Amino acid sequence: MKLYSFFRSSASYRVRIALGLKGLAYDYHPVDLRSEQDLSAYLSVNPQGLVPALEDQGDIFIQSLAIIEYLEETHPQPPLLPSTAAQRARVRGLAQVVACEIHPLDNLRVLNYLGGPMKQGEEVKLAWYRHWIAVGLGCLEALLKDHPATGRFCHGDSPTLADICLVPQLYNARRFQCELSPYPTLLRIDAACAALPAFQNACPEAQPDAG
Amino acid sequence: MKLYSFFRSSASYRVRIALGLKGLAYDYHPVDLRSEQDLSAYLSVNPQGLVPALEDQGDIFIQSLAIIEYLEETHPQPPLLPSTAAQRARVRGLAQVVACEIHPLDNLRVLNYLGGPMKQGEEVKLAWYRHWIAVGLGCLEALLKDHPATGRFCHGDSPTLADICLVPQLYNARRFQCELSPYPTLLRIDAACAALPAFQNACPEAQPDAG
Repeated sequence: MKLYSFFRSSASYRVRIALGLKGLAYDYHPVDLRSEQDLSAYLSVNPQGLVPALEDQGDIFIQSLAIIEYLEETHPQPPLLPSTAAQRARVRGLAQVVACEIHPLDNLRVLNYLGGPMKQGEEVKLAWYRHWIAVGLGCLEALLKDHPATGRFCHGDSPTLADICLVPQLYNARRFQCELSPYPTLLRIDAACAALPAFQNACPEAQPDAG
Repeated sequence: MKLYSFFRSSASYRVRIALGLKGLAYDYHPVDLRSEQDLSAYLSVNPQGLVPALEDQGDIFIQSLAIIEYLEETHPQPPLLPSTAAQRARVRGLAQVVACEIHPLDNLRVLNYLGGPMKQGEEVKLAWYRHWIAVGLGCLEALLKDHPATGRFCHGDSPTLADICLVPQLYNARRFQCELSPYPTLLRIDAACAALPAFQNACPEAQPDAG
C-alpha cells in the first residue's frame, strides 16, 4: 500500500494512526500542499488536490474516513469499530463531529481563503479557528463525559475511529494555542491514546517530510 | 423510528432520502433551528444542536452519514452501498466530498458567523458560498465523468450514499443561484434521482414544516 500524505495534514494523520493500529506496512509518499509543483503532479492521483489518498492493488481511495472504513473491511483485526450497529453508529457519529463539523472549517485552504480573497488579518483568522474548535470540542465533551459507553477511549477500552479523529484535532488545537481545559474527558482520552505506539508513530513530527 | 429534522437542512434531507429508499416509515419531528425555543429543547436530544437525529429503539443517533450507515446495517435491503470493499470506498469517498468538504462550509451556522462576528455583508457571504460549491462540485464532476464505475447514478445503476449526498447539495446550490452548467455529469445523475419517489418525497418542499 502507498499513502499520499502531508506530515501536518490532520486527515493524513488519521489514516496513519489507522494503518498503525492495524499493523499494516505502507510506502509513505509525501505531498507538500504548499508546493505548486507537488500539487500539480498530485492532481492526477486525486483531482480534489487534498491528502490523504491511499493506493492499494491498483485502486486509489480518497477521503480519510472512507479509507479507514476500507482498511477496516479488508483488514478487520484489530477492529476500529465496535460490534453492534448501534455502537458503530455512536463511534461514526463522534468521528464525524470532528470530520464534518470541525476540521472542514479549520483546514489550510479555508484559512487561505479567509486571508486571500476575504482579506482578513491573522487575528480574525485565529478567532475563526478557535471559534470552531471551541464549538466542536465542547460538543464532543458533552457527548463523551458521563456516557456509559465511554471508557478508557471514546468508546470502550480500545481505540476506535472516534479516537483516530479526536487526536489529530487536539494536536491542531494545541498548535493554534486553543484553550483545552474545558474538555477534561477529551484530554484524558488523548493521554490514553498518546501511550500507544500507533498514535506516537503517526504524529506529524515522526513523518519523513516533517520540517 | 423518529426523525428530528428541519425541512431545509441538507443533512436531514439525506437521511429522509435514505429512509425513503429503504421503504422505512418514521415519525417526522420538526426542529426549527432558527427558533431559540426549539433549539433549547432539542439540545437534550443532540448536544450539538444540529439536525438530523434519529431515535430508534431507545437510542439516539447523530450525524447523517453515521445514521445512514446504521440504516444500511439494520435494514440491508435495498443496499445503499455496493458489494465490494473497493466499490464501497469509492461511494463513501464521493459522499464525503460533499459531507466533509462542501456542506460544512456552506451551512447556516457558518453563514451566520460570517455575517455576525465577522461582520461580512451579503455579497461576501454569497461569494464564499459559491466559491466552496464550485470547488467541491468541480471536484465531484472530475471524479465522476468518464469513470468506468459511474452509471445512471454516481456508482452503477442504482442509487447509493453518494447520490443521497449529491442531490441535497445541488438543491442548495440552486437555492443560491450557483452556476451549474460546468457539471453535466452531476446534472444528469440529479435528473435520474429526481425521477424516483424516495428523492421526490424527501425534498424540502414536501416536508410538514416547509414554509
